[in-house]
Amino acid sequence: MAQENLSVVLHAKGDLRLETRPVPEPGPNEVLLQMHSVGICGSDVHYWQNGRIGDFVLKKPMVLGHEAAGRVVKVGSAVTHLKPGDRVAIEPGVPREMDEFFKGGQYNLSPTIFFCATPPDDGNLCRYYTHSANFCYKLPDNVTFEEGALIEPLSVGIHACRRAGVTLGSTVLICGAGPIGLVSLLVAKAMGASKVIITDLFAERLGMAKELGADFQLTVKEDDGPQQLAKKVEDTLGAQPQITIECTGVESCIQTALYATRLGGVVMLVGLGAPMATVPLVNAAVREVDIRGVFRYCNTWPMAIAMLSSGKVNVKPLVTHRFPLEQAVQAFETTRQGLGLKVMLKCDENDQSP
Amino acid sequence: MAQENLSVVLHAKGDLRLETRPVPEPGPNEVLLQMHSVGICGSDVHYWQNGRIGDFVLKKPMVLGHEAAGRVVKVGSAVTHLKPGDRVAIEPGVPREMDEFFKGGQYNLSPTIFFCATPPDDGNLCRYYTHSANFCYKLPDNVTFEEGALIEPLSVGIHACRRAGVTLGSTVLICGAGPIGLVSLLVAKAMGASKVIITDLFAERLGMAKELGADFQLTVKEDDGPQQLAKKVEDTLGAQPQITIECTGVESCIQTALYATRLGGVVMLVGLGAPMATVPLVNAAVREVDIRGVFRYCNTWPMAIAMLSSGKVNVKPLVTHRFPLEQAVQAFETTRQGLGLKVMLKCDENDQSP
Amino acid sequence: MAQENLSVVLHAKGDLRLETRPVPEPGPNEVLLQMHSVGICGSDVHYWQNGRIGDFVLKKPMVLGHEAAGRVVKVGSAVTHLKPGDRVAIEPGVPREMDEFFKGGQYNLSPTIFFCATPPDDGNLCRYYTHSANFCYKLPDNVTFEEGALIEPLSVGIHACRRAGVTLGSTVLICGAGPIGLVSLLVAKAMGASKVIITDLFAERLGMAKELGADFQLTVKEDDGPQQLAKKVEDTLGAQPQITIECTGVESCIQTALYATRLGGVVMLVGLGAPMATVPLVNAAVREVDIRGVFRYCNTWPMAIAMLSSGKVNVKPLVTHRFPLEQAVQAFETTRQGLGLKVMLKCDENDQSP
Amino acid sequence: MAQENLSVVLHAKGDLRLETRPVPEPGPNEVLLQMHSVGICGSDVHYWQNGRIGDFVLKKPMVLGHEAAGRVVKVGSAVTHLKPGDRVAIEPGVPREMDEFFKGGQYNLSPTIFFCATPPDDGNLCRYYTHSANFCYKLPDNVTFEEGALIEPLSVGIHACRRAGVTLGSTVLICGAGPIGLVSLLVAKAMGASKVIITDLFAERLGMAKELGADFQLTVKEDDGPQQLAKKVEDTLGAQPQITIECTGVESCIQTALYATRLGGVVMLVGLGAPMATVPLVNAAVREVDIRGVFRYCNTWPMAIAMLSSGKVNVKPLVTHRFPLEQAVQAFETTRQGLGLKVMLKCDENDQSP
Repeated sequence: MAQENLSVVLHAKGDLRLETRPVPEPGPNEVLLQMHSVGICGSDVHYWQNGRIGDFVLKKPMVLGHEAAGRVVKVGSAVTHLKPGDRVAIEPGVPREMDEFFKGGQYNLSPTIFFCATPPDDGNLCRYYTHSANFCYKLPDNVTFEEGALIEPLSVGIHACRRAGVTLGSTVLICGAGPIGLVSLLVAKAMGASKVIITDLFAERLGMAKELGADFQLTVKEDDGPQQLAKKVEDTLGAQPQITIECTGVESCIQTALYATRLGGVVMLVGLGAPMATVPLVNAAVREVDIRGVFRYCNTWPMAIAMLSSGKVNVKPLVTHRFPLEQAVQAFETTRQGLGLKVMLKCDENDQSP
Repeated sequence: MAQENLSVVLHAKGDLRLETRPVPEPGPNEVLLQMHSVGICGSDVHYWQNGRIGDFVLKKPMVLGHEAAGRVVKVGSAVTHLKPGDRVAIEPGVPREMDEFFKGGQYNLSPTIFFCATPPDDGNLCRYYTHSANFCYKLPDNVTFEEGALIEPLSVGIHACRRAGVTLGSTVLICGAGPIGLVSLLVAKAMGASKVIITDLFAERLGMAKELGADFQLTVKEDDGPQQLAKKVEDTLGAQPQITIECTGVESCIQTALYATRLGGVVMLVGLGAPMATVPLVNAAVREVDIRGVFRYCNTWPMAIAMLSSGKVNVKPLVTHRFPLEQAVQAFETTRQGLGLKVMLKCDENDQSP
Repeated sequence: MAQENLSVVLHAKGDLRLETRPVPEPGPNEVLLQMHSVGICGSDVHYWQNGRIGDFVLKKPMVLGHEAAGRVVKVGSAVTHLKPGDRVAIEPGVPREMDEFFKGGQYNLSPTIFFCATPPDDGNLCRYYTHSANFCYKLPDNVTFEEGALIEPLSVGIHACRRAGVTLGSTVLICGAGPIGLVSLLVAKAMGASKVIITDLFAERLGMAKELGADFQLTVKEDDGPQQLAKKVEDTLGAQPQITIECTGVESCIQTALYATRLGGVVMLVGLGAPMATVPLVNAAVREVDIRGVFRYCNTWPMAIAMLSSGKVNVKPLVTHRFPLEQAVQAFETTRQGLGLKVMLKCDENDQSP
Repeated sequence: MAQENLSVVLHAKGDLRLETRPVPEPGPNEVLLQMHSVGICGSDVHYWQNGRIGDFVLKKPMVLGHEAAGRVVKVGSAVTHLKPGDRVAIEPGVPREMDEFFKGGQYNLSPTIFFCATPPDDGNLCRYYTHSANFCYKLPDNVTFEEGALIEPLSVGIHACRRAGVTLGSTVLICGAGPIGLVSLLVAKAMGASKVIITDLFAERLGMAKELGADFQLTVKEDDGPQQLAKKVEDTLGAQPQITIECTGVESCIQTALYATRLGGVVMLVGLGAPMATVPLVNAAVREVDIRGVFRYCNTWPMAIAMLSSGKVNVKPLVTHRFPLEQAVQAFETTRQGLGLKVMLKCDENDQSP
């Protein structure tokens, strides 16, 4: 095994460094992974640019990266379901306590959960990384490492669509055609949505949405009022959507989401914006339009692998750029500039394939 | 049968009149009822004072009243489950169309629903009234007419607690100790809530809440900040409540509700305030605190009757004033001044018993 | 309008006749339909051969047929959402009373429901037929009449998969590859099932299942024991299925279903066999495998139309035979002999297209 | 701390011994408990009499007991939420792996779960016992040790009523008035059931049921047919029960349960009988009566403590006999003979209070 462990470490706001760390040893319930593909998430860039996200503040150097897949190179003494050579996708959140949330099947809400690249927990943008074996999921041969890494953003879409209750024949509005809007689109269609309409300020992002299966695209103009926009959505679909997945966090978009959604429907708040928002709550309340948020995800990896392996969902077009790990700073800069959709870092010197 | 049909008719904003209308004939699927007890709702007073509620605008004279019970005096030709003499509680909302909402079990959301005392539909604050027999529910002998009339506000509490998912061991915060807060309290306890804390500006309203089973009462001061208040709730309960039922509609109370509710919990918006509200949406969303509204209720009368008849819920203390129908204006004035809790109008000249 | 109304009438067990009946007049809430395509269901044949199904006994002549689509030729005085010329699919069950089941969204359970071709209610295998307008659903231009008629069997699959909770990544076992097994397959895949395995005694039926998207087919041998068969299913899938949809009604298949289904899973009983069945209840109970039945369906037409129109489900291959209405007896004989899958009767002399 | 650890050990079928074992040391995530009160369960007696329950076979000596409460005397190095002196109730099932069931909130279904007094795992009928701290729940001052021990059987009732969906106004049939029938009764009433009818062969057991809140009692005669009995239940309640909780496992009772339950209702299989049962499956299936089992319970201790502490449920009358630990054999004999309801063993020499 290589002795070197090149890692992408954020030292402080704006201070991103490539440095060499020791190769860790797996604990009894852990596996040591040789990382293969790690996607860059908006939150990684946000930590780099701001040193914090909300109450999570960087106080000491932290390895970035949490959209990841790799190969098992060593297993802890108590690990039985994995063996060296296994290709796995990594779920970045690992509950530390068997608290009421974990026991109740909502481990994502467990306050003491470990989460890759959320301060102070290190991520996996490096050559070698240890992780709880129970949160590493073996990839079938027909699922690539990059698809494995993309299970992380895909999980956001799964959790959102599942909490929203997307099902056979659902009509869905998705606000925002960035990576999260697009994975929500993929998942909504896979769960049986009959019509998905997606909105964005930028026509080129809507083009990708169309390729990925959106039934309707709506380019939003800066001065469209929320109620006007809601009307346009209704006119386009022929009826109000039963479910809206709001992926922008912008106040006017949340307003649009509430106005646009059908009686008895659901608005999912996936995008995050300013702490306080002014919204037409009475309008939503008397129409029994539920407003639900998501915090990451739970119990999504197995179903995501099942989807990818069976070919029901195709996430490959989401990857628009690839860089070797050594060029991490350039890769981050690419994401920061909003170029393309998903940038992948290739961590294995000897295998840079998808 | 008496030929006279004294009725409480709102002619215009501020113009409430007692007048005599013809006794109606029941259609094939209707029953003619001799009204016995009709409670005055805040919405009745609101129409009287304002001539409208939101988009519902009084355009022609309308009989008020929708919290009602009476006795069947005549049945339509197609009615088989009721007969003259039956004592019944009246569900004021009757769907007119078998639309997707009705078919799906949410007939309260049916846009064309008939609803007593919502313009332009007449209510039942009168001597004789016809109603769909399918929405009249026979009262057991041990349930009084007034209890029957109180099923209407009780239904708001049932619908709210049911949508909130109150169950065994739930901890519940109720904001506002008016009639709706109090029925929500009764229902939450009957559904198994272990601890209910209720807040209000007025200590005397909290006294009634205590009598009705609240475990904790919290008097709110005008200058309590939402986050401070949320903290007080947590300190009092020993933990954040899993469910909050917001019955005031006041913006700061909605803020408190969102801050106060536990991770993965639910905030029910029952009270209605200004159309737009500024609230900590991100805080709720990332803690997966769902925000749900209620529009009236559906499928509550049978379970309410079961509760009242089995003695699991005691609504009798809610009635603080009674007036004969002839004194309707005085009764409305009493409600307008906020005296007591529930004012009952006694519509049967020969039987003014509860 | 033609004055003749050729109808397929069952007079008694074994006595199927083509006869001319008057063209009916629609009531206020009804539409008169010129029938276009009507599929023959196993239950139609069963009434013909046996004169009864369970407690439903033919006592007077009854028109057969309930898988149907046609064209509106006249609307009742109160009908607003349909007009002459509209092409519609017909939901054969129409609740007669606003009872607790209808109000609660389960109108299929309403004991007094009207249902086409269930004694004593006439079906729609004829030239002209009146039906409740609220249970006629307009077909989009890109959905054929035959697809409209097939919504009826498809609805059985939708109701079964929905009650079973099929969702993203579900693994599903379907016992029996007849029409109901096949529509369940189509629906399960459309709802996101990742792997569906289907079993049958006849390899040729499994061939059609494969064409329609089954991931695995298993030919059952008469002497396979239920536990052996359950093991084969597990071995083929690589794990026990989460959901089993039992479409045969055969006791040994129900046993297989219970043994085969994963801990915490669901067995749907769709096929009906002998009244009493001997089954491994303890095995299912301690593994929390739920056993659920279906009675027809409710609230399925809109989502089925959405599926067909959006191309998510393709039911066209199910139609293997077509006969003009005049050859109804021959068509019934074809179904009785188990030839092909779905036999369509073409009721419109001037338009025999799909 | 005492050095002696008197324990009730089953060596083989029929060979129950009191013997002294070493006092164990708690692991990092464990607590050492001084046991106070341990109830005898039917399964303890069954192992004693038969050496096995189904596939669970006693192969080496095993300490019995799993309905237990005690006092913390020592905490493991990683335990933070408990301290010496804390009084706790013990949840006997502790998942060993973070498998899909645990992650999904159904840890009771985890195949490798540790469970007290299920071979080969030792129970806690002894003086000193170590247990996972996460599955020890602190008792409030107003909840006794015996109430704490009774949370175990109460949990069976909670899990059954919760899976059955008991809610406000539910009508419930409980078959069997033994300990599990009685706790199901307590829980059903606490969750809002309006009417509970309970059946048993023995009138004296029904007497206790009446004391605990049953609305109706029905003494079953050996030769009552299932359908007759179902009719009696309907006649007594005035309608079929929406939910039936079957606690006997007897085939004829399961048949009664299926016939008796209302359209769209639920039959819970809690009692376990012969592996194969002959039941009217078609009757249940076409009436959409779901059949659900329970395997132990999960996520019940916190709500049970909330119920007991708030006084919503009173389990104290269930304890009819108490013996000091030294008289364990006599206590087991008492249970074996079916005397009384719940026999408590008092494990703390210096505190034999409830």
